Amino acid sequence: MPRPSVEEINALVRPQFPGSPNECAEVGEGYAVARRVITGEELRPGGYISGPTQFAVADAALWYLVFAVIERVELMALTSELSIRYLRPAIGETLWARATLDKVGRRNVVGTVRVWTDDGVDKPTATAQGTYALPA
Amino acid sequence: MPRPSVEEINALVRPQFPGSPNECAEVGEGYAVARRVITGEELRPGGYISGPTQFAVADAALWYLVFAVIERVELMALTSELSIRYLRPAIGETLWARATLDKVGRRNVVGTVRVWTDDGVDKPTATAQGTYALPA
Amino acid sequence: MPRPSVEEINALVRPQFPGSPNECAEVGEGYAVARRVITGEELRPGGYISGPTQFAVADAALWYLVFAVIERVELMALTSELSIRYLRPAIGETLWARATLDKVGRRNVVGTVRVWTDDGVDKPTATAQGTYALPA
Amino acid sequence: MPRPSVEEINALVRPQFPGSPNECAEVGEGYAVARRVITGEELRPGGYISGPTQFAVADAALWYLVFAVIERVELMALTSELSIRYLRPAIGETLWARATLDKVGRRNVVGTVRVWTDDGVDKPTATAQGTYALPA
Repeated sequence: MPRPSVEEINALVRPQFPGSPNECAEVGEGYAVARRVITGEELRPGGYISGPTQFAVADAALWYLVFAVIERVELMALTSELSIRYLRPAIGETLWARATLDKVGRRNVVGTVRVWTDDGVDKPTATAQGTYALPA
Repeated sequence: MPRPSVEEINALVRPQFPGSPNECAEVGEGYAVARRVITGEELRPGGYISGPTQFAVADAALWYLVFAVIERVELMALTSELSIRYLRPAIGETLWARATLDKVGRRNVVGTVRVWTDDGVDKPTATAQGTYALPA
Repeated sequence: MPRPSVEEINALVRPQFPGSPNECAEVGEGYAVARRVITGEELRPGGYISGPTQFAVADAALWYLVFAVIERVELMALTSELSIRYLRPAIGETLWARATLDKVGRRNVVGTVRVWTDDGVDKPTATAQGTYALPA
Repeated sequence: MPRPSVEEINALVRPQFPGSPNECAEVGEGYAVARRVITGEELRPGGYISGPTQFAVADAALWYLVFAVIERVELMALTSELSIRYLRPAIGETLWARATLDKVGRRNVVGTVRVWTDDGVDKPTATAQGTYALPA
């Protein structure tokens, strides 16, 4: 079975989260990218994108990575744990997260995630690492 | 300076996050409790409260804990890192998070957070631990 | 099957780690305590107990907690993930760690750990949280 | 000031940790590699390198990374937090850890670490992420 495409992932995920601004932007061998257009609700005092918003995009990127590496859109894959570190203020209109594979096993997938904004991938606003559990 | 009350915390935080459903429910010696009424947007397939929603409430509880232990509502206190583990499906109309103090220093505050729903605090849906940085 | 005692845990664990200075000091309902007498090898410049030594004791406490809650000494229970935060310099002749249960499931055990020295449990030197996987 | 060399790092670190089997193996632009020859004390039942041993090497790699990016051997740089995930059994005579830079600031350094054995870097046994605090 081939890796699902960006279009297939978004078509299957969107109906499940009708209000979610997260979307899959790219998938490839051992990685996936999530994107979120900032609407304004996610902003803290000072115009900074909130920490939980960055977490949500990192978590979405890991989810898409799971689909990429197990080669199917498994909606019931669930985060089992995730840790995040915030690196610099996040300002911008678009938030990105790229998850790369650390390991895929029968029971779970582990990956590392970099989060950034319009300022560019070289100025990450957060870095994260976590585990998704696969349904039995 | 005395510890800010629940009312003071909510009165200062709300205008900064007009759309946020998180609110402070309780503060005391070395702890704080956050509450969030679930509106439906936070639900995953199957009616489960999403992981990022639970993270957001845990993060809010830690923020209120910072206010409680430094004895002022410091809006510019920022999460520097937070790790979360999901323990069981989260189903219910209200989500709670209680943060307890591990350490308060000049530069940061560390705490442990338990998250639960209407099923009760004895059935936690997530457990977390993290650090807030205080402004210089 | 009853909870294994401190003596049973140490008798089964010691032969597997002949050189290890970690030992079980206490087990009870939903918690376990590890102890390590500092020999000097674990010290950093300044006489501080090193971070990895504190991690090792926290990890041992979680392992003993697993034995306590699954009610058998399961040597093949393995850490799947663990995060630690260091809170203050660790100085002293004995290092302690107390792990408390967040959740026991069929496949894993999650717990929170506090680490301290002779200065007392009220001055924790580290706080941690993690997951042990149980063999299938 | 130039980046310290592997020889300079080991010459300054070794006297501080006379018994430690960790050593710096490589440093470069934004990364550092630690190596540890396994002596046998670090083995769990079954001949697996223990989790705390892998943590210790990951922590050492992050420490060397700090030296590389702040361009001096700062012995008083201290881990403030570190999270680790174990990926597969670690078997072998040498343990390696490579830390890559996520961010260097005035107060701290954040990095991501991959750990592996003789089986090769493509079969990581652990992945970690953490923060070192720099002295004021």
